[in-house]
Amino acid sequence: MPDAFEVNPWEVKGIVDYDRLVREFGTEKIEDFLYKKLFSYGKAPASLRRKFWYSHRDLNMTLQDYDAGKGFYLYTGRAPSGPMHIGHIMPFTLAKWFQDTFDVNLYIEIPDDEKFLAKQGLTLEQIDEWVKNDILDIIAVGFNPDKTFIFQDREFIKQMYTPACRIAKKINFNLAKAVFGFGGSTNVGHMFYPALQIVPCLFEKKRCLIPAAIDQDNYWRIARDVAEGLGYHKPAQIHSKFIVPLTGMAGKMSSSEPHHAILLSDDANAVKEKVIKHAFSGGRTTLAEHRKLGGNPDVDVPYQWLATFLEEDDAKVKKIYADYKSGKLLTGELKQMLIDKLNEFLDQHQKARAKAHKLVDRFKYTGKLAKKMWEFEDIE
Amino acid sequence: MPDAFEVNPWEVKGIVDYDRLVREFGTEKIEDFLYKKLFSYGKAPASLRRKFWYSHRDLNMTLQDYDAGKGFYLYTGRAPSGPMHIGHIMPFTLAKWFQDTFDVNLYIEIPDDEKFLAKQGLTLEQIDEWVKNDILDIIAVGFNPDKTFIFQDREFIKQMYTPACRIAKKINFNLAKAVFGFGGSTNVGHMFYPALQIVPCLFEKKRCLIPAAIDQDNYWRIARDVAEGLGYHKPAQIHSKFIVPLTGMAGKMSSSEPHHAILLSDDANAVKEKVIKHAFSGGRTTLAEHRKLGGNPDVDVPYQWLATFLEEDDAKVKKIYADYKSGKLLTGELKQMLIDKLNEFLDQHQKARAKAHKLVDRFKYTGKLAKKMWEFEDIE
Repeated sequence: MPDAFEVNPWEVKGIVDYDRLVREFGTEKIEDFLYKKLFSYGKAPASLRRKFWYSHRDLNMTLQDYDAGKGFYLYTGRAPSGPMHIGHIMPFTLAKWFQDTFDVNLYIEIPDDEKFLAKQGLTLEQIDEWVKNDILDIIAVGFNPDKTFIFQDREFIKQMYTPACRIAKKINFNLAKAVFGFGGSTNVGHMFYPALQIVPCLFEKKRCLIPAAIDQDNYWRIARDVAEGLGYHKPAQIHSKFIVPLTGMAGKMSSSEPHHAILLSDDANAVKEKVIKHAFSGGRTTLAEHRKLGGNPDVDVPYQWLATFLEEDDAKVKKIYADYKSGKLLTGELKQMLIDKLNEFLDQHQKARAKAHKLVDRFKYTGKLAKKMWEFEDIE
Repeated sequence: MPDAFEVNPWEVKGIVDYDRLVREFGTEKIEDFLYKKLFSYGKAPASLRRKFWYSHRDLNMTLQDYDAGKGFYLYTGRAPSGPMHIGHIMPFTLAKWFQDTFDVNLYIEIPDDEKFLAKQGLTLEQIDEWVKNDILDIIAVGFNPDKTFIFQDREFIKQMYTPACRIAKKINFNLAKAVFGFGGSTNVGHMFYPALQIVPCLFEKKRCLIPAAIDQDNYWRIARDVAEGLGYHKPAQIHSKFIVPLTGMAGKMSSSEPHHAILLSDDANAVKEKVIKHAFSGGRTTLAEHRKLGGNPDVDVPYQWLATFLEEDDAKVKKIYADYKSGKLLTGELKQMLIDKLNEFLDQHQKARAKAHKLVDRFKYTGKLAKKMWEFEDIE
């Protein structure tokens, strides 16, 4: 069923053919030489080594800029849509690696306008509640507070609106329709929003590298055209796949179906219950059958999650794969491995998050980069 | 030729059939009882007495609100498009009368984004130059600095963006297309702009009265639908006709054709030269013929301008009409009357304008109303 999936900034449905997305979006797969080059700067997180981050645009040029002393900067974001789950944190984890490794600025946009404009029935009041929580989760990742600026569109709009006008002037309805599928019932706020998501691509004259899931690519295709016309670098991207939901390999994890997702706020018991009850297993129906025929790690969500981002040890991942396939490792045991890794990750995250409120002001207003950005008026 | 004219926020072409606009836009002509009621509050300016202000929505309800002690407020604006001419000042003149007569707040929007978004080739830098000058011309009208707030969209956007999102969510492309003629080549910034022009209709819980030329009515039609849905009064309007260009009765005066317009910055000689050279006359080709057959004041621009807004004395206007029609008053004499009135008006305006720079901060930031508005965050 080559057509039975859909990927756009508002929806991911079906089993995603990631190679096809690369062809359709006109991005490039990250080739081995480029992975090697990335790894040469420092030990990369599992999600990068396991090719969960699999596609890019101008990532090589970004590294060339770095090597040549020109530097680059990072930009990513988080559209508030409910409690954050472990899938939502992935771009931030990678951004942290890039920031730590290359010592660069990072801009984090919180579009507290987008989902309100895109979704019927959603209120700004609800979004503002989510934003407060999201910012704590993001800070918990451990960014450099003097080189990271977290900003909300509605709060930072004075600084963004003039460049957004310059950008918006270059995006007409036909283009927005072709790229985003906007139509007659799309409201004029939702139509303007892409300009605001593009503004941070022009925050510095250096090349901008954006770690984000590939469903955001529509924005960057337009951003690349617009940026050059305004005298800036085309922003570079590194694209991830999606973390599959607990319940199986189709679509992406979603907070709106909380028992199919592991929330960053889940406690150890919630994790245990969700994984045991809902994690789709590649195991056989009986123990005897499993021992005899082996399981299928390729569709097994616990294996996929461990392999994609939770188990740092490459050798261990290989062993799990082999043992599960051979029937040596049982479904219950594999699920327990996932539960342990998740709870280890969440325990650490939640501890960091508990202290995050003390840092909110630095990331938003008083840190070195934040302070500078509140003086920002327009692109050059 | 009933179809040979066009009126929209960006263009006025042909000889305007104002009654037809009332029918098409669904507004109401100001009836005699309503004029009388208006005049009962205080001596109205010529432009109101001569029915240059001719159409409205809910003007009667606005006055009822005032009579009932509920009050109302005023909102108008000026989109920078070059040096202001005497046509541009008309809504401000009427706004001043309303403010003086009813002692109400007045909000003046300077959309320093709109024309940039709507016109190819126009730069923000050019607009920002015009804005500085426009604000001085507006202040010269003599508003109450503690009850008048002048704001530029790009500077005041932080306060406007959240309500604009609420408004924009209620305006989809189909509606914007139907009302403004937006299409595939309209850019997404231009599409969002109407939301920003509507925001000030929701600045207070009182009824908002907007004095503006009738070409702006598209915005208010949407504003009225949206405002009620958000728990506010439908904004009321009082609509003017257009000041015809010096050169004849078709279209409206435009700064882009400077010798067809009297600029607020024109000196006495420039006025004289423009009127003598370019003012379209209803006179006969020879003096003898004029004396014998009389002129046609109905197409004579000097008469029209005097009658529309420049000559306060009703009896004098009647006499000019009769004398010109009979041939007693000659074209040169009528032109001289216009020149004198224009120069009297401009002299007074320019003197006030020369002192206006001292008041800019009060109207924009430090006056009582301005100060309050910088604290504004959202509609209720």
